[in-house]
Amino acid sequence: MKIAIVGYGNLGKGVERALKNAPDIQCVGVFSRRNIKSESGLPVYKTERLSGEGVEVDALVLCGGSSSDLRVQTPFFASRYTVVDSFDDHERIANHVAETGAVATNAKTTALLCCGWDPGLFSVAKLTFASVLPEGRGYSFWGKGVSQGHSEAVKKIDGVIACAAYTEYDQAVYDAVKRGETPDLSPKDIHKRTCFVVIKSGANREEIAQKIKAVPRYFEGYETKVEFLSQEEFSARHAGFAHGGAIVYNGKTPSGNQNVELSLRLSSNPEFTGALLLSYARAAVRLNREGKFGAYTVLDVPPAYLSPLSKSEQICRFL
Amino acid sequence: MKIAIVGYGNLGKGVERALKNAPDIQCVGVFSRRNIKSESGLPVYKTERLSGEGVEVDALVLCGGSSSDLRVQTPFFASRYTVVDSFDDHERIANHVAETGAVATNAKTTALLCCGWDPGLFSVAKLTFASVLPEGRGYSFWGKGVSQGHSEAVKKIDGVIACAAYTEYDQAVYDAVKRGETPDLSPKDIHKRTCFVVIKSGANREEIAQKIKAVPRYFEGYETKVEFLSQEEFSARHAGFAHGGAIVYNGKTPSGNQNVELSLRLSSNPEFTGALLLSYARAAVRLNREGKFGAYTVLDVPPAYLSPLSKSEQICRFL
Repeated sequence: MKIAIVGYGNLGKGVERALKNAPDIQCVGVFSRRNIKSESGLPVYKTERLSGEGVEVDALVLCGGSSSDLRVQTPFFASRYTVVDSFDDHERIANHVAETGAVATNAKTTALLCCGWDPGLFSVAKLTFASVLPEGRGYSFWGKGVSQGHSEAVKKIDGVIACAAYTEYDQAVYDAVKRGETPDLSPKDIHKRTCFVVIKSGANREEIAQKIKAVPRYFEGYETKVEFLSQEEFSARHAGFAHGGAIVYNGKTPSGNQNVELSLRLSSNPEFTGALLLSYARAAVRLNREGKFGAYTVLDVPPAYLSPLSKSEQICRFL
Repeated sequence: MKIAIVGYGNLGKGVERALKNAPDIQCVGVFSRRNIKSESGLPVYKTERLSGEGVEVDALVLCGGSSSDLRVQTPFFASRYTVVDSFDDHERIANHVAETGAVATNAKTTALLCCGWDPGLFSVAKLTFASVLPEGRGYSFWGKGVSQGHSEAVKKIDGVIACAAYTEYDQAVYDAVKRGETPDLSPKDIHKRTCFVVIKSGANREEIAQKIKAVPRYFEGYETKVEFLSQEEFSARHAGFAHGGAIVYNGKTPSGNQNVELSLRLSSNPEFTGALLLSYARAAVRLNREGKFGAYTVLDVPPAYLSPLSKSEQICRFL
């Protein structure tokens, strides 16, 4: 199975680092708009080449940001390639699926979307828990860690050089939910965000802080702190990519409470998400080979398709 | 969608209790070898009727025990019906899938097997974690709670009237694994079992205890304690069905450890497993309707098939 990595930020590097554990997948190269060198010595091409002479691959692994890149790139490349992405702008997912689906169905390609952890693994858990225990309530807890999408959203604000946007959940609410309580709280009530921001000299701190707090969906409505610091301090203290979170669901049955949880503690969010994307690329190619054209999400993927093992090996190892 | 419940022990009752939250599923009745009354007033029939005049259903939900019932019932009924079961004798699963698959493929029915939590949800988690992070190690933690299959295995020993077989994991090992350690330990090293047993008057305690400890796969090799008590004490102290457990996986990527976990704390194991079986019955019927005949397991089921919601509702609620 042949893939290509499109975009060479942290996520693209995460996919590249996962390749050594995927001997069934060959990466033909990295496609970037920038002049870059690949860590592992993969061939590097300009992204334009994908729409020009093209490349012989079974799938493109799209590693751009949701708002800046994927909204345009995913439907664009689906007209020619099977693609996998980790699109994570929750409110625009329905639209992203519809738009990409129309292109992919027509081109007989497969677009497998939202293959990160939230949306992604967490979505699978939420659907499973709610389907099995419809009478109940689930909660998403994110943190503590740096949210890539949120950091990117801040970096787009004029005057901002760098940003690490931390998300942290309220431990007391988590503990209550684990005890079986089902408080009437939304994600905005149980999370706070802290942005560590490097700005251009002369930029207006107050104005930038206000702009950050007003970014719709990402910060608006959340308790958000903004702290400014120098590039040196930033590099020394906020270069890590640790993150985590949990989906906790309390389901009611006649005998009482059934508490189920999926949790992650990640020392590197982009390396974990990159590894996820690579597994879902395997699934996308399989879906395409069996004639499943159009747009799909993590919710449509049989777990078996993530694994390079045969059915009998899977039964032996996992059942 | 029409289903029937086959077997009316704790698990069959669990399926029945889950029906009220599944308005898309109609249960035509309970099939039992015994003279029973259904809790919710469902029609009750003799199991023989399924192989005689038969019944009009989309799927049978098989609720018997693995060793006594399902080994025979699942392939037998797959010759005529789409079936779903929670077969849990790990070492015999490959054989169970092969045997049932041959029958189901021939009969153009669908047999969806091993749809409990272990095997079942835990299997899906193990496959997913190991596929995404191949360099790593996972651990199963069971307990503390009553293992139905183990209690059943003890009840088959001559002289035993009742048994509650508790499984408990070693908290220190769990804590070490959560810290990212990957000790070289098997399930037998990190679990102990305690059986509370009621025996016939005059039965030999020592002999029964030895027989329990020697049951292959279930107790052999595990640290097992056997305690004898009266029926009154048993009924007062061991009538509950609480259980739980976790799959914890430490995956290595170049930047460090990625810890992922799926955990359950169940106040009623049979009610949770019954609810799972009912969701997987929905999936089995869908697989059958799209022409997927033969034997499948939880590993082959797209999560979306568990939910009664439409694709667009699923995207809106879970992604």
